[in-house]
Amino acid sequence: MNKELFLVAWLCLVLPNIYAQNVDSLQIRKIYEEIMLRGKAYQHLDFLCNKIGNRISGSPQAAASVEWTRQIMDTMGLDTVYLQAVMVPRWVRGDKEIGKIMTKMGNFEVRLTALGSSVGTEEKGLLAPVIEVKDLAELKKLGEKNIKGKIVFFNRPMNPLEFDPFDAYVGAVDQRGSGANEAAKYGALGVIVRSMTSNQDNFPHTGNTRYEADTKKIPAVAISTNDAEKLSTNLAQEPDLKFYLKLNCQMLPDVLSYNVIGEIRGSEKPEEYVIVGGHLDSWDIGQGAHDDGAGVVQSMEVLRIFKRVGYKPKRTVRTVLFMNEENGLRGGNEYAKVASEKKEKHIAALESDSGGFSPRDLGITADEKVWQKMQAWRALFEPYGILRFLKGGGGADIRPLNRTQNTTLVGYQPEPQRYFNYHHTEADTFDKVDKRELELGAVNMAAMIYLLAEYGTE
Amino acid sequence: MNKELFLVAWLCLVLPNIYAQNVDSLQIRKIYEEIMLRGKAYQHLDFLCNKIGNRISGSPQAAASVEWTRQIMDTMGLDTVYLQAVMVPRWVRGDKEIGKIMTKMGNFEVRLTALGSSVGTEEKGLLAPVIEVKDLAELKKLGEKNIKGKIVFFNRPMNPLEFDPFDAYVGAVDQRGSGANEAAKYGALGVIVRSMTSNQDNFPHTGNTRYEADTKKIPAVAISTNDAEKLSTNLAQEPDLKFYLKLNCQMLPDVLSYNVIGEIRGSEKPEEYVIVGGHLDSWDIGQGAHDDGAGVVQSMEVLRIFKRVGYKPKRTVRTVLFMNEENGLRGGNEYAKVASEKKEKHIAALESDSGGFSPRDLGITADEKVWQKMQAWRALFEPYGILRFLKGGGGADIRPLNRTQNTTLVGYQPEPQRYFNYHHTEADTFDKVDKRELELGAVNMAAMIYLLAEYGTE
Repeated sequence: MNKELFLVAWLCLVLPNIYAQNVDSLQIRKIYEEIMLRGKAYQHLDFLCNKIGNRISGSPQAAASVEWTRQIMDTMGLDTVYLQAVMVPRWVRGDKEIGKIMTKMGNFEVRLTALGSSVGTEEKGLLAPVIEVKDLAELKKLGEKNIKGKIVFFNRPMNPLEFDPFDAYVGAVDQRGSGANEAAKYGALGVIVRSMTSNQDNFPHTGNTRYEADTKKIPAVAISTNDAEKLSTNLAQEPDLKFYLKLNCQMLPDVLSYNVIGEIRGSEKPEEYVIVGGHLDSWDIGQGAHDDGAGVVQSMEVLRIFKRVGYKPKRTVRTVLFMNEENGLRGGNEYAKVASEKKEKHIAALESDSGGFSPRDLGITADEKVWQKMQAWRALFEPYGILRFLKGGGGADIRPLNRTQNTTLVGYQPEPQRYFNYHHTEADTFDKVDKRELELGAVNMAAMIYLLAEYGTE
Repeated sequence: MNKELFLVAWLCLVLPNIYAQNVDSLQIRKIYEEIMLRGKAYQHLDFLCNKIGNRISGSPQAAASVEWTRQIMDTMGLDTVYLQAVMVPRWVRGDKEIGKIMTKMGNFEVRLTALGSSVGTEEKGLLAPVIEVKDLAELKKLGEKNIKGKIVFFNRPMNPLEFDPFDAYVGAVDQRGSGANEAAKYGALGVIVRSMTSNQDNFPHTGNTRYEADTKKIPAVAISTNDAEKLSTNLAQEPDLKFYLKLNCQMLPDVLSYNVIGEIRGSEKPEEYVIVGGHLDSWDIGQGAHDDGAGVVQSMEVLRIFKRVGYKPKRTVRTVLFMNEENGLRGGNEYAKVASEKKEKHIAALESDSGGFSPRDLGITADEKVWQKMQAWRALFEPYGILRFLKGGGGADIRPLNRTQNTTLVGYQPEPQRYFNYHHTEADTFDKVDKRELELGAVNMAAMIYLLAEYGTE
């Protein structure tokens, strides 16, 4: 090839890319300006947190959040807004829990939160000696002769040497998720779990616990990290102290609830779906602001902004607000099941369920070819705070789509250090969310959904 | 060259680098573990904020912070800890300010904060009509005939479209810094400035204002962004409304204060200095937690951690806690002056004065060769959250060193979105600082000081 011909060929290859990148960067800038100047995510979060409040699956507030988000999306000029029915568990806490460390020196009240799905105690409560363990392996080693008739106290902290507290959480949460079920196998009467947080603080953090069908269901609670230290110290001084526990929670029959779905039909490939979502339900303490009010209002903002800036997506784009992420994942499972039944080809799904913090990373679960294609987009995000695309990531609600359809998953992973300060506690309230940080999350989510809707994953 | 010879040559070139990087990454990991497991920065910040409190130059609390940090550094086993005398301005607020919008509909109280260095009003206060302007250019255009006898209201917001609020701040702060001085030239009687924050909130944000020697000194205050909107609306409805202003602040004669300096003598090149610092003084409202208690305790932590992990720096390393950054920069100027007089060769200086938030960037002001050398270190920081080295950066206190000695400057630039929520307000308190975020800042600062002390800038 002579030099001139080579140059022309090179230009033909490169110029369209440069042109596309420029068009994309202008489109994303438009999205950014609209959100930063006239965004509604923060105002929506205020309403969801302060007017509706926390909204555990099956609660009246969960029903209110379904109706309210449906109405909000109805005002956006989308092509469709609809509810997708799903039966969800209905767990209720009942009257406030009571917990006491009973020692020779006296009795000390301890703040408790029942773990989600836990059974209650008998009416008179549960009084039993306590045995402290670090992990499930230690429980197994101690066996029935040391465990039977006792309350097992799981006290392994989240590892402070994990840079990312989400990794530390994954390394500790088996105590909360399986502790009660495993301890029951050795005859334990109840379980106390150290709260899942890197902080030393006074908040008990709830979260789900799971029973296997054939295991006796025993009551399970979390205590704050400060109280966990105190209980551990007391136990060292007086190994035969007792703990009094009174829980009033119970599981009621399943009730009807909904995923809330808004849609803009694709202009060129309507049969390919790109979705963005968060989960509507929260735990029943605090306001579910970071978990996951933030993800909900950001996901609604994506479609609203597309309409505002006049962007017509080539592929069908949906906002999906999932019900029941916290204690059952019924919404996520139902959505994937219906998508398969209707043969809706979901090429990509993005979830925001790591808090409304400042943008930092996107985590991507995709085949290598798709990953490579998406890598080329990274520079478009840097002006808005996303500095890395990391391999792996998604979200609990969209994972079923990946399993059934090999859908590419994107997890919005903002700055992670403060998430577990608030997670599943009464401290997860609206005032903990910064307006600009929340909005910048919506900007980056909208940018990624735009690119996926425009270019697909092929 | 044959293949084998080439391979040997290549290994000789590359292996020492790989070895050094590995040694460095292990050393930095040691620093990280020591800080995350047994760090004292958070505990120190608690004391500085909650036991000493805010500490404007010349105040008893500023004196307490000098004595306390000296004593803390005295316990660290450093080679020297000493005070460097410097005369500082002594500006006092006096009794709480009073501000009222006086309209036909009635009078409305407005929360005020005098701008630092402002003169007070007369005893009876100042009552005058208000003229709203966006910037100094508009002021000039309006001229004496429109300005004389009035209070000038500077109401240009920080630009919400700047991704980095520090850039938005730079774009708006001339109103606060020069507004009073410029308005006085056209016969204004006083100045009201919209607070420097991207938020709509109710906090008046103080900050320094400067008078030229030959300009009449007129009183200057900040009002919250919410009150700025309110005043602007009222002015649109009733252009001849008046504003009542009563300030009791005054500038007293300079007083003696100190920079606080701790030093570990270099083992190989003691004549080369690497320093790390923040500023001890704060404004006289809130607790100066992010600005700049965080930088102070992080800077002390760097030298403490070096001793704890047994690291002996090759070059002389100092922690310098500067006095009077907020309203005079006397400490920073004095430090650079003395360094030149003593011919202390300062090769590099790092300042933390952008808050105790999660690590993100380091800003570097250096000659191109030094910049290139430092770039090779970047990967060492990624595990601890610093994702970028950016060109440009430093800090007000260390900038004089760059001017006098061409010292390489490093600015610790953590996640910036929330800084101006708290900056110079009563909301800048200890509880706004997250323990892990503060500690991770100290980790990255210590890592950079380690590399500079070990390898220099040549």
